[in-house]
Amino acid sequence: MSAFGITEARETLQKVFAPWIVALGLEPVGFDAAGADFLLPENPSLVHIGGVICGQATASAADTCAVVALAALNGRFRICTTVDLTTHFIRPLKPGPVEIRVDVLSNGKRMAYTRVEMRAKGEAKVAVTATSAFAYLED
Amino acid sequence: MSAFGITEARETLQKVFAPWIVALGLEPVGFDAAGADFLLPENPSLVHIGGVICGQATASAADTCAVVALAALNGRFRICTTVDLTTHFIRPLKPGPVEIRVDVLSNGKRMAYTRVEMRAKGEAKVAVTATSAFAYLED
Amino acid sequence: MSAFGITEARETLQKVFAPWIVALGLEPVGFDAAGADFLLPENPSLVHIGGVICGQATASAADTCAVVALAALNGRFRICTTVDLTTHFIRPLKPGPVEIRVDVLSNGKRMAYTRVEMRAKGEAKVAVTATSAFAYLED
Amino acid sequence: MSAFGITEARETLQKVFAPWIVALGLEPVGFDAAGADFLLPENPSLVHIGGVICGQATASAADTCAVVALAALNGRFRICTTVDLTTHFIRPLKPGPVEIRVDVLSNGKRMAYTRVEMRAKGEAKVAVTATSAFAYLED
Repeated sequence: MSAFGITEARETLQKVFAPWIVALGLEPVGFDAAGADFLLPENPSLVHIGGVICGQATASAADTCAVVALAALNGRFRICTTVDLTTHFIRPLKPGPVEIRVDVLSNGKRMAYTRVEMRAKGEAKVAVTATSAFAYLED
Repeated sequence: MSAFGITEARETLQKVFAPWIVALGLEPVGFDAAGADFLLPENPSLVHIGGVICGQATASAADTCAVVALAALNGRFRICTTVDLTTHFIRPLKPGPVEIRVDVLSNGKRMAYTRVEMRAKGEAKVAVTATSAFAYLED
Repeated sequence: MSAFGITEARETLQKVFAPWIVALGLEPVGFDAAGADFLLPENPSLVHIGGVICGQATASAADTCAVVALAALNGRFRICTTVDLTTHFIRPLKPGPVEIRVDVLSNGKRMAYTRVEMRAKGEAKVAVTATSAFAYLED
Repeated sequence: MSAFGITEARETLQKVFAPWIVALGLEPVGFDAAGADFLLPENPSLVHIGGVICGQATASAADTCAVVALAALNGRFRICTTVDLTTHFIRPLKPGPVEIRVDVLSNGKRMAYTRVEMRAKGEAKVAVTATSAFAYLED
């Protein structure tokens, strides 16, 4: 494993992503051999007319956290492109913090696959799930 | 068809979506029986370290424009939930305006399906494509 | 929970699906509150020129097993339609039996969501994952 | 462009795919610079209890036809793996021949993206759409 921890994840979140994504305020929570945990803090600017957190924010957070989880597993950020981002919106998320779990399903020389699950903080039931393939553009 | 045009689309974009999505500044361009056209204006806050428009922004724009295109087809905003948002990132989008085409593949009583394609303004080649199912929560 | 077990699952697999799907020979292995387990037996007619089990077979098995897992949870087969089937092919599956796990992520009045994972029998690493939404066409 | 036509496509369909896929009897209809057309002939063994063509068959046909369309564009079959197959089932397909259109959205050195649309023969409305990414495993 790597020396890539909370500090490095925060730096990556600040440096790699667009300012519009940095504004999500994603917080790295922990890293392990299988993936990583993050928190999407409560943020009124993510809530739509229906009074729930917009799916665009959770889909965007899924992609972002998956990239950071891969960086942690690799010990550094390897330039990659998201091949696809497939998000299923299963249950509404009321305003409040969202727990994000990334599982890295595979991490190869050229490709990686991730799954992300999101739950309202403290809830057992999954609200959003996203599966992605990534292609590494450099070694 | 409906009397839902540019003015109503702008109102919908302001009222229905989260402030974080309103910040994308999506512009309705036109509506027809098959779908709708939008523009994602150039926006430096959407550009990541690789110097291209972040995929999170295009995926988010796809979902947003699809909802507005359905509203236009229905003549009003019907409350709906995105069942899934599947985005494929085919080519990088350099900073600049992005043309967005929504085709409504079906629009029923309970479900609707949309496809979104994005191209750098003036380019023929598709950069991003997204397919979604929506479930209407009211008639 | 229901009295829907191995016997009922075998009957469902024989009666509900197309003969081309019945030919997969899918075997129900067990049911629990979260989902179900199945086995795709070794079958040379599913192997393509690359010497691995074709992705079309695993995608087809994923959809099929998800429908049976929902039937088990509901205690009977409720007519439903697959809204989307999103399959990621992560690792090749050499010829041989494939273990299939279905987790039902939600099961509502109108919609259900499932996730399917497949592994070569006895292997820990996931080879195929599929996420789907289903719409019930009757109560 | 290539000399890869109907004859070569038929050979590829017979040689590359698993016997279970060959049994679909997919017929190449034509090739052009943007993609290819195929026909899935009427086949009672693909019809499920609901009296419509099973989604597993159309998803499987989508993947198969996409691979052949890429082979045609490349002038030969390049070994590739399907990264993801995302299929949306929009309308039921009554028993009968199905027209399949493959559009190759991009075809690069390492990756290709395709979109497949299916319609009941002679119908304008799309019944099934599938988007995929492919990774080439050789040059």
